[in-house]
Amino acid sequence: MSRSLPKDALRPLLAAVEPARKADPRAVQNHLDNLTKPPGSLGYLEELALRLALVYGDPPPTLRHRTAFVLAADHGVASHGVSAYPREVTAQMCRNFGVGGAAINAIARAVEADVVTVDVGVDADLDDVAAIVHRKVRRGTRDLTREAALTPDEVTAAILTGAELVARRDEVDIVLLGEMGIGNTTAASAVAAALTKCAVADMVGPGTGVDRERLAHKRALVEAALRRLSPDIGPLEILAEVGGLEIAALAGVVLGAARAGRAVVTDGFIATTGALAAVRLCPPARDYLFPSHRSAEPGHAALLNELRLRPLLELDLRLGEGTGAALALPLLDAAGAILREMATFAEAGVATRARQ
Amino acid sequence: MSRSLPKDALRPLLAAVEPARKADPRAVQNHLDNLTKPPGSLGYLEELALRLALVYGDPPPTLRHRTAFVLAADHGVASHGVSAYPREVTAQMCRNFGVGGAAINAIARAVEADVVTVDVGVDADLDDVAAIVHRKVRRGTRDLTREAALTPDEVTAAILTGAELVARRDEVDIVLLGEMGIGNTTAASAVAAALTKCAVADMVGPGTGVDRERLAHKRALVEAALRRLSPDIGPLEILAEVGGLEIAALAGVVLGAARAGRAVVTDGFIATTGALAAVRLCPPARDYLFPSHRSAEPGHAALLNELRLRPLLELDLRLGEGTGAALALPLLDAAGAILREMATFAEAGVATRARQ
Repeated sequence: MSRSLPKDALRPLLAAVEPARKADPRAVQNHLDNLTKPPGSLGYLEELALRLALVYGDPPPTLRHRTAFVLAADHGVASHGVSAYPREVTAQMCRNFGVGGAAINAIARAVEADVVTVDVGVDADLDDVAAIVHRKVRRGTRDLTREAALTPDEVTAAILTGAELVARRDEVDIVLLGEMGIGNTTAASAVAAALTKCAVADMVGPGTGVDRERLAHKRALVEAALRRLSPDIGPLEILAEVGGLEIAALAGVVLGAARAGRAVVTDGFIATTGALAAVRLCPPARDYLFPSHRSAEPGHAALLNELRLRPLLELDLRLGEGTGAALALPLLDAAGAILREMATFAEAGVATRARQ
Repeated sequence: MSRSLPKDALRPLLAAVEPARKADPRAVQNHLDNLTKPPGSLGYLEELALRLALVYGDPPPTLRHRTAFVLAADHGVASHGVSAYPREVTAQMCRNFGVGGAAINAIARAVEADVVTVDVGVDADLDDVAAIVHRKVRRGTRDLTREAALTPDEVTAAILTGAELVARRDEVDIVLLGEMGIGNTTAASAVAAALTKCAVADMVGPGTGVDRERLAHKRALVEAALRRLSPDIGPLEILAEVGGLEIAALAGVVLGAARAGRAVVTDGFIATTGALAAVRLCPPARDYLFPSHRSAEPGHAALLNELRLRPLLELDLRLGEGTGAALALPLLDAAGAILREMATFAEAGVATRARQ
């Protein structure tokens, strides 16, 4: 009984996500093939254009309001020294986001997106920071190596918090995923390994930059934690046992955006873990996911593969915060512009093929 | 005597290009390492930031005026059926650029760049098109399979025309390379093979989309033409024997931008061939070249390698027009923004490393 209650709370959200079918894919393909360029010559951009048309209609609108949600939380597992940085950095970086000094602030400004930093579980008092959204579910997770990181109710609360962030912002046209949380590659590695059944060794990487010894330690901790999990464990229980508040909230942001018919741009390893959890809870949500980059974190490629998302950028990023999502956004703008603005062969009076 | 005259005409341009040293590389690296992110965590973006600082100073300015120069010309070799499209398409597409209906127009608008279409050798009368710049050196090249495509004087005129396009636009902060010319992958393949000494088979690809039979024909034509060339032939002579007016003018745009201390973003196979010719004429020009994408054209990777430019995008583009350059531009904007806008650890009060 107690295990089914949180699922009931999510049911209305999951049931409200519909497959993206705002356009007929054959009609969009025909439109693309009649534009003044050799068919297919814009390569992968044409596939993005098609997918945008399915989400928004053909042609897709200009994506004016673009928001990077940066979900921040702390992790009990950080006490094991799995990060190159001390735990206080989560709160310090939240303050930095608030004053606009972080990488995501600079890059978001460059691509005309705004940044909404959300405390969903930072283990510090941030009440004095007016520039961030306060939605603390609890002060950090429990230590996942010893016990369940979160209760089922806490996971559900974090997911609903993420979905609500999008629902309250009706003006947002496209959502970028971002996160901050010292220790969160460890939690994400555990969640990703459990969701995909991939080997832990393939899912645990250096994160922000730990040495070989600490990497081995990180792997051992994740392997030990995963031994607690039954083989048929579902996504909600995985998030509770070894997840994080920002990871669950990221899944919620994806579900909230999908419910609202908005595209979501993935970011690095942690954000993509949240996105995969969302798709496991609600498969039609995948229609709204757009890739950004493939990070330097070794498990990221497997997650993107699982989601059938071919990355747009491979720049060896390993920062998170939504930086990869923001960097990829102009490619989606360009893909939409093709359908919106290009002339057809007939309109432009251009010959379509050689007469020979 | 007659062969040295054109080189004399280029001498002032080539001599005016200086290495990009507007900042001390060690000071820029130190600046990057002190920003609020793990060192190196923005991956390749940090290298771009460093290179932008060398061109413009640290921090680099916002690149407000961004211009895609789309150089258009026709090719005698097009009469051999080396393209999927008839020769008239060059002129038809110039008209399409003029009214803003082509892919480069849509994508340039999306990234806030403007498009300057330049007729440097279209084999049609375009005088009625007010929206393009008229700099016709001659109406298309001669048939490179039978004779030199251009005289040395014509090559020099095309290069100086390209350089002059930039010189006349002092307000342009960054230059994007673009081109249009039915048959120009054939000419570019010949130039690229001659410049790099790579095998013709590796340099001739399907272009806008020819079938296997026509591809073999295209290879045979290029091989035959290259047999005329002496092994110690220089870049100017290569451009004359097997080049094109837009390829020479693209080299000129690169040299003009380098002389003016402006960065240049490469595009696909043809534009990169022009860029490589520029660097062969004047090695310091390489400092100003920034990569965009690696195209579907097989020889492109070898050219980028020769220029030591790691591509930013691999989207299977094969259109040209400057579309790849425009798509990559926001990544350069973001790279500059990092140096301009991010806080340092000290400024933000963020801990730099774990105390253990």
